[in-house]
Amino acid sequence: MIVGEVVGNIWATRKEDGLTGLKFLVVQPEASLSASRPSNFIAVDRIGAGVGDKVMVTRGSAASYMDENKTLPIDALIIGIIDAVEVERGEGNG
Amino acid sequence: MIVGEVVGNIWATRKEDGLTGLKFLVVQPEASLSASRPSNFIAVDRIGAGVGDKVMVTRGSAASYMDENKTLPIDALIIGIIDAVEVERGEGNG
Amino acid sequence: MIVGEVVGNIWATRKEDGLTGLKFLVVQPEASLSASRPSNFIAVDRIGAGVGDKVMVTRGSAASYMDENKTLPIDALIIGIIDAVEVERGEGNG
Amino acid sequence: MIVGEVVGNIWATRKEDGLTGLKFLVVQPEASLSASRPSNFIAVDRIGAGVGDKVMVTRGSAASYMDENKTLPIDALIIGIIDAVEVERGEGNG
Amino acid sequence: MIVGEVVGNIWATRKEDGLTGLKFLVVQPEASLSASRPSNFIAVDRIGAGVGDKVMVTRGSAASYMDENKTLPIDALIIGIIDAVEVERGEGNG
Repeated sequence: MIVGEVVGNIWATRKEDGLTGLKFLVVQPEASLSASRPSNFIAVDRIGAGVGDKVMVTRGSAASYMDENKTLPIDALIIGIIDAVEVERGEGNG
Repeated sequence: MIVGEVVGNIWATRKEDGLTGLKFLVVQPEASLSASRPSNFIAVDRIGAGVGDKVMVTRGSAASYMDENKTLPIDALIIGIIDAVEVERGEGNG
Repeated sequence: MIVGEVVGNIWATRKEDGLTGLKFLVVQPEASLSASRPSNFIAVDRIGAGVGDKVMVTRGSAASYMDENKTLPIDALIIGIIDAVEVERGEGNG
Repeated sequence: MIVGEVVGNIWATRKEDGLTGLKFLVVQPEASLSASRPSNFIAVDRIGAGVGDKVMVTRGSAASYMDENKTLPIDALIIGIIDAVEVERGEGNG
Repeated sequence: MIVGEVVGNIWATRKEDGLTGLKFLVVQPEASLSASRPSNFIAVDRIGAGVGDKVMVTRGSAASYMDENKTLPIDALIIGIIDAVEVERGEGNG
């Protein structure tokens, strides 16, 4: 999972069937000191995240396992709103 | 999901079985200010997108979950035509 | 999917069970003007592609969905031989 | 799988259902001499890893196959605590 | 699939259940002339590869499809020991 911040909203009326009612948010990945900044991306949210929240995001097809009964064509899911990160070593880009 | 723009069409008569009848479009990922521009790629469209539309695209094997009864060997699917993006922070590359 | 050109063949006698009889080809991804050239890779072909053909390739685990009855450990599949690409905008690296 | 070092902890009270009780750790990928350093990421741990441990991590949706009876929306799993690496060739970034 | 060379061994006594008995090898991806060298990674081997062998490796969750009856949390599998590569065009980094 990666750490990012919710920075915006996105709307799409015309969508694939099965995605109606899902909330899509714009997420900015946390910057690493030594890597080039990755691009913003869109993630589905079901836990009530909003702009300004620091979140954990699952990317790739694992994001589509959010429902045990069906798999939806989504590739990013906010799985947690972060309370605290404690990094004892490394560059602080936890 | 990433945001991109439909920039073209692609045709392939000889194809894997099961892909006949699918529409393939060329998508240009939205440029980020700080990252190097990613390459164009090909995505399947089932919702009527066309050249000039700004779209949300699911990449990876989650794209193949577009049909609950079978999984097709495709790795990119246009899942929505974007009406509006509202980014309150970040670089504006929502 | 990405666009690439078949540039060679590869042979491996000792293989994982289940992969016997599959044809493996070396694919060179189409160069983008602004991105660094990605590396060549190996893809499975079942539609009769050969050296010099411009092809559409599905990458990642979706490539293993080529057979509905089993999933093979392959991560790239040639899904179409390209007849034409028509890019109306962008950098022409469709 | 990649090699990394556990460098911290992360807490998220509000989470996707099904993830309650899982332990999340911050992992720093081992630096390669010639590649740019990849960013830290978050991985699930079920084998008792802690800060300072050198670990093998599975990334992508394969991480969600940790339980045969269900698939969880996670994309990184610590699968082993490394005892020793013996690299006979290459750059030593095993 | 990518082409790489086996350059070492790795040992981990404490592991996820289900991975006991698997052989893990350090693989160095073949260098491309024009791309930055990717990092070494760890792959499972079931076909008897050893240090110095040039191998084809499947990455991502497709690697976990090596057994039809269960899916293991691994993301790289050596699927073939390469006899020969014949590249007629491109950069020779087949």
